[in-house]
Amino acid sequence: MQFLSDNAAAVHPAVWKAMMAADAADAPYDNDALSRELDSAFSALLGRECAALWVATGTAANCLALASMAQPHGGVVCHREAHIEMDEAGAPGFYLHGAKLLLADGASAKVTPESVAAVIDPIRDDVHQVQPHALSITQASEYGCVYRPREVAELATLARERGLGFHMDGARFANAVAFLDCAPGEACAGVDALSFGFVKNGGLGAEAIVFFDPEAARMIRYRRKRAGHLQSKGRFLAAQILAMLENDVWLSNARAANAAATEIARAAGDRLLHPVEANEVFLSCTIAEREALRTQGFGFYDWGTDAARLVTAWNAQDEHVSALAQAIAGL
Amino acid sequence: MQFLSDNAAAVHPAVWKAMMAADAADAPYDNDALSRELDSAFSALLGRECAALWVATGTAANCLALASMAQPHGGVVCHREAHIEMDEAGAPGFYLHGAKLLLADGASAKVTPESVAAVIDPIRDDVHQVQPHALSITQASEYGCVYRPREVAELATLARERGLGFHMDGARFANAVAFLDCAPGEACAGVDALSFGFVKNGGLGAEAIVFFDPEAARMIRYRRKRAGHLQSKGRFLAAQILAMLENDVWLSNARAANAAATEIARAAGDRLLHPVEANEVFLSCTIAEREALRTQGFGFYDWGTDAARLVTAWNAQDEHVSALAQAIAGL
Amino acid sequence: MQFLSDNAAAVHPAVWKAMMAADAADAPYDNDALSRELDSAFSALLGRECAALWVATGTAANCLALASMAQPHGGVVCHREAHIEMDEAGAPGFYLHGAKLLLADGASAKVTPESVAAVIDPIRDDVHQVQPHALSITQASEYGCVYRPREVAELATLARERGLGFHMDGARFANAVAFLDCAPGEACAGVDALSFGFVKNGGLGAEAIVFFDPEAARMIRYRRKRAGHLQSKGRFLAAQILAMLENDVWLSNARAANAAATEIARAAGDRLLHPVEANEVFLSCTIAEREALRTQGFGFYDWGTDAARLVTAWNAQDEHVSALAQAIAGL
Amino acid sequence: MQFLSDNAAAVHPAVWKAMMAADAADAPYDNDALSRELDSAFSALLGRECAALWVATGTAANCLALASMAQPHGGVVCHREAHIEMDEAGAPGFYLHGAKLLLADGASAKVTPESVAAVIDPIRDDVHQVQPHALSITQASEYGCVYRPREVAELATLARERGLGFHMDGARFANAVAFLDCAPGEACAGVDALSFGFVKNGGLGAEAIVFFDPEAARMIRYRRKRAGHLQSKGRFLAAQILAMLENDVWLSNARAANAAATEIARAAGDRLLHPVEANEVFLSCTIAEREALRTQGFGFYDWGTDAARLVTAWNAQDEHVSALAQAIAGL
Repeated sequence: MQFLSDNAAAVHPAVWKAMMAADAADAPYDNDALSRELDSAFSALLGRECAALWVATGTAANCLALASMAQPHGGVVCHREAHIEMDEAGAPGFYLHGAKLLLADGASAKVTPESVAAVIDPIRDDVHQVQPHALSITQASEYGCVYRPREVAELATLARERGLGFHMDGARFANAVAFLDCAPGEACAGVDALSFGFVKNGGLGAEAIVFFDPEAARMIRYRRKRAGHLQSKGRFLAAQILAMLENDVWLSNARAANAAATEIARAAGDRLLHPVEANEVFLSCTIAEREALRTQGFGFYDWGTDAARLVTAWNAQDEHVSALAQAIAGL
Repeated sequence: MQFLSDNAAAVHPAVWKAMMAADAADAPYDNDALSRELDSAFSALLGRECAALWVATGTAANCLALASMAQPHGGVVCHREAHIEMDEAGAPGFYLHGAKLLLADGASAKVTPESVAAVIDPIRDDVHQVQPHALSITQASEYGCVYRPREVAELATLARERGLGFHMDGARFANAVAFLDCAPGEACAGVDALSFGFVKNGGLGAEAIVFFDPEAARMIRYRRKRAGHLQSKGRFLAAQILAMLENDVWLSNARAANAAATEIARAAGDRLLHPVEANEVFLSCTIAEREALRTQGFGFYDWGTDAARLVTAWNAQDEHVSALAQAIAGL
Repeated sequence: MQFLSDNAAAVHPAVWKAMMAADAADAPYDNDALSRELDSAFSALLGRECAALWVATGTAANCLALASMAQPHGGVVCHREAHIEMDEAGAPGFYLHGAKLLLADGASAKVTPESVAAVIDPIRDDVHQVQPHALSITQASEYGCVYRPREVAELATLARERGLGFHMDGARFANAVAFLDCAPGEACAGVDALSFGFVKNGGLGAEAIVFFDPEAARMIRYRRKRAGHLQSKGRFLAAQILAMLENDVWLSNARAANAAATEIARAAGDRLLHPVEANEVFLSCTIAEREALRTQGFGFYDWGTDAARLVTAWNAQDEHVSALAQAIAGL
Repeated sequence: MQFLSDNAAAVHPAVWKAMMAADAADAPYDNDALSRELDSAFSALLGRECAALWVATGTAANCLALASMAQPHGGVVCHREAHIEMDEAGAPGFYLHGAKLLLADGASAKVTPESVAAVIDPIRDDVHQVQPHALSITQASEYGCVYRPREVAELATLARERGLGFHMDGARFANAVAFLDCAPGEACAGVDALSFGFVKNGGLGAEAIVFFDPEAARMIRYRRKRAGHLQSKGRFLAAQILAMLENDVWLSNARAANAAATEIARAAGDRLLHPVEANEVFLSCTIAEREALRTQGFGFYDWGTDAARLVTAWNAQDEHVSALAQAIAGL
């Protein structure tokens, strides 16, 4: 009964169906009919004109999005525990040609206008210090917490005032929207580029980079090819994404994962280290307690020495979730 | 009736089958059971101990392979019309942090020890000139011609003598082996890293980078993640590759594509601009002649002002191929 | 009697005087009084508003100038034998984060609108090919030939029409102006950034990068520091440059070097491989003839197997020059 | 009466003398007689075989040294307030092609084996996290404190055990040696590459990078040229350095600067925020107090809101130093 992560779960049937349906040869790269539908699909979904490019991974999506905002000599503000800082093997440094990550603080890996200002205001505008060029937030955050639309808007305002590009790492954007129960566009209002995640949400091998500035999209098309991310049978990536958007599969999947996490959260009670607003649960848990859970057949990651990290996937089985909830309650 | 390219054709049924069979959740990235089979699968296939990493594209495979050989301040020798020079949007410059491509000549995009030496011998070993660090050849070449095992061995010897790493871009390696009708290992003897192509040969979205030096593989695992190419549901890429290796699907597919090209070549006669040894046919063809072919329903690329480039895919339909052959003969 | 190069000659007395005069402590980096004079000094000299930054070498000047024009995914058009292609150890690849050099042809290392168009027109505007972002010419060229103002203007027009930045590598700009006997601004009309060379012309360790776009200058100030080229005792570099500008020392030095080259050229007659319009002389010369010259005490570089390259410095001694001219005439 | 910094002070007479003496033309770049003396000069000085390369700035020295140790996908451990992290405009990211700086803590900007281990031990050796490749310490530290030989040795041991290259940023190495009153080699024992600073110590525009691994030096010679740091009249940089080494000018200069700082420190008493072991004094000081000092004609930088940073140069005038000491005592 795996609660290790949502990044290696099975794939939603609608995706398989769409993949098979796209088998017939079509134009290569992103010139095929399906890829050509992406812009309007996302524009409709987000209620804003935008361009959408597929890529294979969230790391590529994040870095290509940021490449449209940060010059090599600049910096990107992000949370100290942001995925781009912690778990992308230095990918931002690679794609941004050495640009720095300027680390901000905030509870549950959510930055605030104040914590961002605390990082950028002390930077003298002289050539000795790296100037901030962009702000990147993760929605939902690395601790599974969600920025409210008002919070996103405030950060967008700060970014605009300070002349920063505004990127949203939406590896679990679907889970955030599911939690907020709002129009998707509200959960990313004011953002310049959004990494819209699908793989962790029942997808297979395609994520979308959504650009609200057509010039940025135009430039990043070159960078995507240059990074070896322009797959020749791109119709399959487009097929995956469109299948997830159709009938709001992306949203139902996220709701399911969130509901499972919520159930576990209720059982965890005051063990919770962070509010559970998406599909990740961080709870304090001794080594012995974790041993006990593992003995009962539950798989999850340790989180430091005193905690556990549980992640529910889109297809979490009710009986497994209930079993885990009970096991936690029984610790 | 499309002969535009082999890079957007349909996918072989065995690949779909293997993809579906791999659906069940497993360890993420390349920690799953299928990915763990790759090293031994390729070692057996090539008759040499090696490590094999999946990536989504040939561009990524080429650049990551070269990154294990060329330092940023060095250069890579390749043919003037090599894919890495012409059609990868500057990807080598990106992945190799500015290393130069040192261009060599040769008929049908095949370099020779002489043409390589002609490029590297004049380079003074001083700090003003970029020193060669690696040699990259494309097997089969960009004009669909194949390096004989003896030719590969001679280049390997030269590379070793000059202290260069030796990379083989095998986007159409399968077609080369099919042509040579030899053990695959003979078609890449002495190579340090091989980009073993599958996508153009009935695959979907996975290529393999084969390293014959375990230290190189170890380092490139970091670079693959850093480049955003470590997909979390990596088992699907491994599944595609293993499905192509099983029962030598890779070889039958290539044989079929080659046979179709051979048939067209016979009809083209002395219009051929290069020997047809893989699945690409370059023939001289006036604008009017190309118009005539297109009117008959054949799709293909112009090649400059006076020629056409035809590519046969693994699933080229006999009747289409015959029709094209006849149409060409009738020009 | 050295005619090897002009890049290691002695330093003009005015430069030493200015260096000593600048010894007293002042603000660091480029905040000192002398550095602050550079913008107006060059604006006056070139008859155009501009910003001027000092750096230690022509390589740094060229690359920082190009960095203001070419994005990492783009390319720079230059002559096949341009210094940035041949003798800068891949510096453009480093500073431009992997951008490509797109090589054009032309007699005496001078490109023409036709030869530039021949390189860029065939480039399809799709993501597979590197798009040109800038054009770089060397004035005077690597073979000591000078672009006439009309030629520069035509290239500027082409660059503007094609949306390319226009850079001029002026390592020997002074020699070009001396030859043209025109206002300096005419020798670089339409250029966006000029590497104005001083070291080869009696200077010590300072070159100037002149930007005609203040935004470009603003950005490159960050890149200069980032490249480790913002020296803290920058007043000394400014002092060197201002000393060379004062009383047109830069122009007299260049005239002297040119005159010496002209005298040698007269003696060389039809041995000349290129017109002598600056301070470099390329003449055909057998191995035996070169041996003879060296035996007589003349130092110079071989140029391939059949030629010699002679360079006259700002302080070439009349008797040495005459002796060389005679010796050549006597071959 | 300036105590702003030591980086823009006047130049020692011995350096001017040596510069003038080197005026006569010699071989270019680092092929001249003076440059050829550097290896043995530093080998003798440090009591270890080494190779020494000149460059114009400490930033270039640091980054080129680190480039010999850290691969692009790796990281460099340094103090949180290290100069390479704070004040080099992201130069390490540029020269190291995106490698990360992994920040460690420690009083007075000195790291310890424990604080370094605290940063690197938690890093999982998997491809998701940037692996440490090198350790960089600043001697004397950014707060003017000195690593004792035993401390350096312990860090060298840790670096060796963990497979890290060990770099020492010696912008003020001279001041550290002056403080320790030991053989210079003892102040950098176990280091793999040392940025030996001269500019801040009475020099003009040359620093030395000392490599204890000849292979590293060999590779970095290419990188120096590639970075535009191989000046053609390199004999002048060698002259500056040799002049500073001759008769231990470097050491007397540092002693003088240290003595001045010590005098000020005595007056500062318990206002001192850090021990004064080199030529920098950090003292707590209210806005009003700083105003008072400035009114009396003293120049210095504010350090945050409550402190001042005073730096004494090699040529600090006794009367100015005494005046400042008195003024501070009188606050």
